[in-house]
This record gives sequence, C-alpha cells and structure tokens, in this order.
Amino acid sequence: MTTSPQHKVLLNENEMPTRWYNVLHDLPTPAPPVLHPGTGLPVGPDDLAPLFPMDLILQEVATDQYVDIPEEVLDVYKLWRPSPLYRAHRLEKALGTPARIYYKYEGVSPAGSHKPNTAVPQAFYNAKAGIKKLSTETGAGQWGTALAFACAQFNLGCEVWQVRASYDQKPYRRIMMETFGATVHPSPSDLTEAGRSILAADSDSTGSLGIAISEAVEVAAQDPTTNYALGSVLNHVLLHQTIIGEEALLQLGKIDEQVDLLIGCTGGGSNFGGLMFPFLREKWAGRMSPDLLAVEPASCPSLTQGTYAYDFGDTIGYTPLMKMHTLGHDFVPDPIHAGGLRYHGMSPLISHLYEQKEIDAIAKQQVECFAAGVLFARTEGIVPAPEPTHALAAAVEEALRCKESGEEKVILTALCGHGHLDLPAYDAYFSGSIEDHGWEDADLQAAVHKALEKLPTSV
Amino acid sequence: MTTSPQHKVLLNENEMPTRWYNVLHDLPTPAPPVLHPGTGLPVGPDDLAPLFPMDLILQEVATDQYVDIPEEVLDVYKLWRPSPLYRAHRLEKALGTPARIYYKYEGVSPAGSHKPNTAVPQAFYNAKAGIKKLSTETGAGQWGTALAFACAQFNLGCEVWQVRASYDQKPYRRIMMETFGATVHPSPSDLTEAGRSILAADSDSTGSLGIAISEAVEVAAQDPTTNYALGSVLNHVLLHQTIIGEEALLQLGKIDEQVDLLIGCTGGGSNFGGLMFPFLREKWAGRMSPDLLAVEPASCPSLTQGTYAYDFGDTIGYTPLMKMHTLGHDFVPDPIHAGGLRYHGMSPLISHLYEQKEIDAIAKQQVECFAAGVLFARTEGIVPAPEPTHALAAAVEEALRCKESGEEKVILTALCGHGHLDLPAYDAYFSGSIEDHGWEDADLQAAVHKALEKLPTSV
Repeated sequence: MTTSPQHKVLLNENEMPTRWYNVLHDLPTPAPPVLHPGTGLPVGPDDLAPLFPMDLILQEVATDQYVDIPEEVLDVYKLWRPSPLYRAHRLEKALGTPARIYYKYEGVSPAGSHKPNTAVPQAFYNAKAGIKKLSTETGAGQWGTALAFACAQFNLGCEVWQVRASYDQKPYRRIMMETFGATVHPSPSDLTEAGRSILAADSDSTGSLGIAISEAVEVAAQDPTTNYALGSVLNHVLLHQTIIGEEALLQLGKIDEQVDLLIGCTGGGSNFGGLMFPFLREKWAGRMSPDLLAVEPASCPSLTQGTYAYDFGDTIGYTPLMKMHTLGHDFVPDPIHAGGLRYHGMSPLISHLYEQKEIDAIAKQQVECFAAGVLFARTEGIVPAPEPTHALAAAVEEALRCKESGEEKVILTALCGHGHLDLPAYDAYFSGSIEDHGWEDADLQAAVHKALEKLPTSV
Repeated sequence: MTTSPQHKVLLNENEMPTRWYNVLHDLPTPAPPVLHPGTGLPVGPDDLAPLFPMDLILQEVATDQYVDIPEEVLDVYKLWRPSPLYRAHRLEKALGTPARIYYKYEGVSPAGSHKPNTAVPQAFYNAKAGIKKLSTETGAGQWGTALAFACAQFNLGCEVWQVRASYDQKPYRRIMMETFGATVHPSPSDLTEAGRSILAADSDSTGSLGIAISEAVEVAAQDPTTNYALGSVLNHVLLHQTIIGEEALLQLGKIDEQVDLLIGCTGGGSNFGGLMFPFLREKWAGRMSPDLLAVEPASCPSLTQGTYAYDFGDTIGYTPLMKMHTLGHDFVPDPIHAGGLRYHGMSPLISHLYEQKEIDAIAKQQVECFAAGVLFARTEGIVPAPEPTHALAAAVEEALRCKESGEEKVILTALCGHGHLDLPAYDAYFSGSIEDHGWEDADLQAAVHKALEKLPTSV
C-alpha cells in the first residue's frame, strides 16, 4: 500500500460497458437528413447498400437509445479495453494549477488510438454479411492501422489508400498496417479513376482524406465482395466510439468526481463524439452540467471557420450529401503533422450539436500544441499523437487560467492516441521547422472561399 | 457482463508490490565476487563510488531478502504499473494448442519496455545523492529512452551514447529520447578517448554496447557531478526489475494458475531476471516447480556458446571484472534488429544460475523470431519488439509441441516491450532481407574464439 496519490482509475473486463449509446435518441432537435446528390431526397438503406452491410446501415439511422455490442466484438475489445482514466498529477504539479486534469487514454489499443473501437465492429458486421475485403482511406495512418488489425481478427482482406503526405512522412505507419496484414497504396494512386483524375491535374498532389475516400469508395462500389469502411464522420462510427465516454463515466463515478469541462480534438469528430455523447446524455438528463470544447487545427478550421451546408464527404463527389461544417470538399489542407485532423468537413452530428450551441469550438496553432505535447510527455510519460496535443494545449491553457483565478476546475481531455509513429513531427518541432498556418493566413482564406463557391446549390 | 473469456488480469495501484526481491539472499550457492582488474581482489564500495551513488552500490551487494521501494519511485511507477498479465487466447486458438499461454506485458511503460523499472530508481537515488547528470549507453534505444524519461522526473540531465547501428537504423528512438529531454550521441563518438580509439582503428565502426558503455563510463568518471547508469547486467538493475515477477505472481494467484514453463529473452539479463527471480524463490521454497528458459539470439549466444570466465563489461576495459558467460569483451556482434540482445556478456547472476543448472538456455535465429512476432501481432494486437520475439518464438515452438502431445502446459512469457519504433525491422522481414547468422557460421565462431583469447589471464 503506497501513500502517493492514485494515478489511474481502472475497470476490469467484466465492468466494461456492453452497449453503445446512440445520441440520436436524445437530440433536443433532430439532425438534418443525409441527401442523395441526384434526387435531393433523403438517402435510404438501399442507396448505401453497395458500400456498407445492412447492420451498419441500420445503425446509421437507428433511433434506439442503446445498441448491444456483439459478443464477438466485446471479445476483441478486451485485448485492450476498458482503457485507463488517468489523473495528470505530475502535469498539474508542473503547471502549478489548482485544476484537476484527467485524461482518458486510448493509446493502449493495437493501433495506438481510439480507431479500433469502430474498426472492430465494422469488420465484424462485414464478415457476418459475407464480405471478403474492406477498402478504406487513412490520413495519419491510425485508421488504416485499426482497420488492418480488425480485418485480421475476422479473416477479411484489407486495402488501404493512405494520403501521400502521410505515406511519405510516416513509413512506420505503412509497415504497421502491413504487419497486421493489409495492402497499402499511396493516394492519389493510378489504381482508380478518382486517383488518376487528381494526378492528371497535379502529378505532385500530396493527397487529402477526401481524395483517398474517393479512391476507396470507388474500389468498393465496383466489387460486390468488397465493402468500404469509414473511420469517422458517420453516425455509426460515432456510435461505436461512445464506449469511451461510457467507460469514463463509470471511472469518474468510482472516484466520485464531477467534470466541469470536457476537451477533445476534432478532425472528423469520432474521438470527440465518442467521449462526449454519454456526457451530453447525462447533461440533458440534468445529472451534470459540464462544458464541452472541440479543438481543431487552425489550418483546417471546419467548425470555427467553415460554412454549415450540404457537402460531399469526399473530393470527387461519390458520397451522399451531408449537412455539416465544411471548408469545401475540394479544399486540400496544408500537410500539417496532425494528419488525423486534416479533413475538409465535420461529422454531421457534431456539426448539428455545434449549431445548437451544445458544444463550443476553438482552433489551435501547431507550435503551441507541440509545446503542450512535450510538457505532457516529460511529466506524464506518454508522448501524445499530434492530434490530441490540440486538446492538451487547450487543457493547459485552461489550467493556467485556473492558476490565475484559483478555481479548482475539473478538466477531462480525450487523449486519443500515442505519438510513437509521429516522432518525426516532434523532431521538426525541436528543429524549429514547424510553421503555424492559421485562419488569419490570407492564402488559406482565399482557398477556402474558392472551395465553398463550388458547393452544390441544388439543396 | 460479457461471456467471452478474460484476456487480462489487472492489479490496482494499491495492490502494487512495494518491495523488490533480492535473489542474492536465497541463492543455493553464492555467486563469485566482482574483481578489481588491477588487484584481482573483490571490489569494495569505494571502487564503484566514482560511477554510482552509495544507495545503488549497497543494493549491488545487499543480501537482505527484500528492499523497500521508495515512495517517490512508487509514485512514478504508478504512471504505468502494475502492468497487465495477458492470457493469449487468440494466439492459442491460431496455434490450435491445448497449452495456456500467458504474457506479462511491459510495453505499457513510457519507454515501451521494462527498462523504466530500473531507470526510475536509478535516477531517484542519484538525484538524492546530489548528482546533476547521468550518462549512459543504449543499444536499441529502449534503455536510453527509459533513462531520459526517468531523469525528467527527478530534474537530472541525461546524456546518451547510442550504438551507431541503432542510431542510424532507428531515428525515432533518438527523437523519443530528445522528447524526454536527453542529449544523444552516436557511438563511437569523437567526444571520448574510448570513442576516438575505436574510430582510429575503424572509422566506419557501427559500434556495440561495449563501446558505448566505455564512452559513457569515461564521461561519468571524469565529472564528479555526473554519474553513470547501466540498464542491465548488474545486481541492482535485476533487483529493480523483480517487480515484474512479483506482480505476475499476484496476478496468477488471482486466477489460481500455476506456471509450468517461464520463457524470457536474454541480452544483459534484466528482463529475464526481473520476471524469473521471484518465481525461483517460490520454486526453492517448494511452492511451485516451473522450468525456466532463456532465449538468446543465435548471432550473439553468450549463454549457450560463450565461456564462463572473468571479463570486462565494456570493450575498453574500464569496468571491474565480472564472472559471466561472455563472447569476449571486444566481440562486436552483427547489427541484428534485436539491438537490446546484442551484448558480449551476460548478467553474472544469470550466468551463475545457468552454471548451477537453475535455468536452461537456447538460441534462436532472427527469421523464426519475426515470424512469431507477426503471428502474435495479428492475433493479440501487439506488435512486439524484436527482442521478446525470441521468447515468443520459443513459446510458439513449445505450444506446437503441446499440440502434438496434447499437454495442457501453462507457459508464461516475458513480453518486455512493443515494437512501434522497430517497425523497419518488420519491413526488412517482409521484404526478405533479414539474414540468419547462427553459431554454425564459421566466421562468427572464429571471431568469438579470437576475442576469447584476449580475456584477462591474471584471474
């Protein structure tokens, strides 16, 4: 028995939640429907059937409050779940803050991030439907790694289009996907119509998530035994991620702690939604009243600077139209190091909640985020991925505000992944070669305005 | 409550052992003393004082059965300890074996291996003694990363000499050490007499742990505010690592499991000793009767092919003489991917126990080890470091033997680290460019025999 304070709150496997929480059931106002780009009418299950198995399509539109997690999925989750909740004692001490900082750490998963939480059920439902292979895109490589691992669990093939900027910068991610058994292509590739059209316009294209999605969707649409899997944005993806928030609620309950402020980074929105939705349920039920803060990169500020409009999820325009905060589907963000946040749009659910003022959002510059990441590594011992350093930077800022005010605010951040495969980004930070590209950048504003002009006008 | 089997056995922080186990207390026959190379007499505390703080020197020769872990060390341990014990259900299923395979996973630590278990107390005792900086060597980079992290916890400087083969092959490790605040030099360097003498003989030297130790020792010996820290081999290092075995005993007790065979890889011996010593105590006390198996790389087979003799711990001959299994202190092993196993000697304690037939040892080739590593990654979701793939390969071999015999043997392997920063080694494996260098290699035998001829003859 030691006398030093408790750092981790653990749950045993038999305490792991066995249901996902479906926020659609409790939304104060319903979210706008997804539209078919040809008809302008809401898409039905049949429209999505070429890409997804029916179980996932039904989850996309389900309104039940909870969805049972299949036993086969729970069995794989237990390889790393429940994930630990940490109290950041040593970070607090370094900051000299009276705030209590917690972080829910998803880096313990096989891929090193929260992504396997949805990759595993997606692979399961596809295998159950008789599908033989999944195709997907990946930015930083976290999602591709997660899906590669998940496919290995259910004996599925896995083909990944990785954004070329990441493919070139982060060879370790490709190797990890291959170690789990996947085939990886840099995107844009010459293997698809979509890729060839991009390369024809710009043979040096560094790619984007939107382009890679187009390539993966194209391949899946053409082969009846291949389906497509998306790592964020869609309702069923965020549904699967709610196990993060459900666990965090149980863990905070074990130590009788009430959270005042929840902070998560947002790219497509799945890490954010996964932690936040169960807390929103509690808030709407009057059982707690935390503030929720989304943090996005200043160079890709879809929530804080994008337009709330119907737009495509991919660059070419293969997907249905989703009402979301968007920088325009052919906007190609700078190749920042937080590749997982480099997406032109935002989950329709997160966008809707932001419009409804249920959540706040801010944008952060890279250099401030890496500074927070290094401080976190040296105090807490975990080198964070560049994506969650955005949330950490906001948490540090708030904790320092509490130092001024003396407020003992309770902050919970989503530490959605480790940065072991992102170390070249830290190298760039130490060498001073990381540049800040913010919204005040006139070139960025011009590029976004140009992209937004092309949004579909028919809806 | 799920019905699938339990994968992990967890301990809460308040169940963490608070004492290290000192195997010296229970050795059936005492181990040979460490000798001063000048006098040929056993070294005393004063001989070691230029390099180590007195607390560690006393632990090196302590004969008490247990040593209390300081509260400051426990507080840092709790950032990742207790570490999980896993049952490898999915690996067993893939092998179709009736054996039950467990692994104690140390990759959850800040450095991603077992090394922080000793880095943290070493940094603590040095800081307590007023030391300002620690110098050390590192092979694969695990130990340097661990010490960099530990020094950050106690406000110490950290200077690391990294074997050039690893420095060049694995830049991510250097960046991680720098992220934790350390300064890293490739070894041999021109910053020390030792390094310059090696470079004069071979300007393309890829280095070795023995050379890097010489450089780090030289720097520490010349500066009274700088001490040296060693990541393996010595008694106090193995003492600190026994928290692994103590936790594993508690975890196996929770599920009423008795182990038949323990398997660990051996480089310097600290991972192996850390898991095994508490089990040896139980065996000597008649409470269990497991077999213990050490697995070393075929290209650096100190236990299975080395001589049991007095030799230096480093290449130049700065250290005291230790009786150990050695390939000769100027033997430079091939730059295999398991850099952490690339050491000419073996812990005197492990060597003694091997001589006394308390443990068995075998050597494994790289290709077989990587094959086991890939199988493990695809089933259990953890990409293992190249070092523990040696233990995994032996576990797989034994599990397949059980498949033939039908024996329900219980196997526990030491999974001492993850391979996130070793992914280029997996890339080499997939591309077929990894070669096996075994003891049957005539060049290897000739090199070792030549090295052994130079062993000191005065003792």
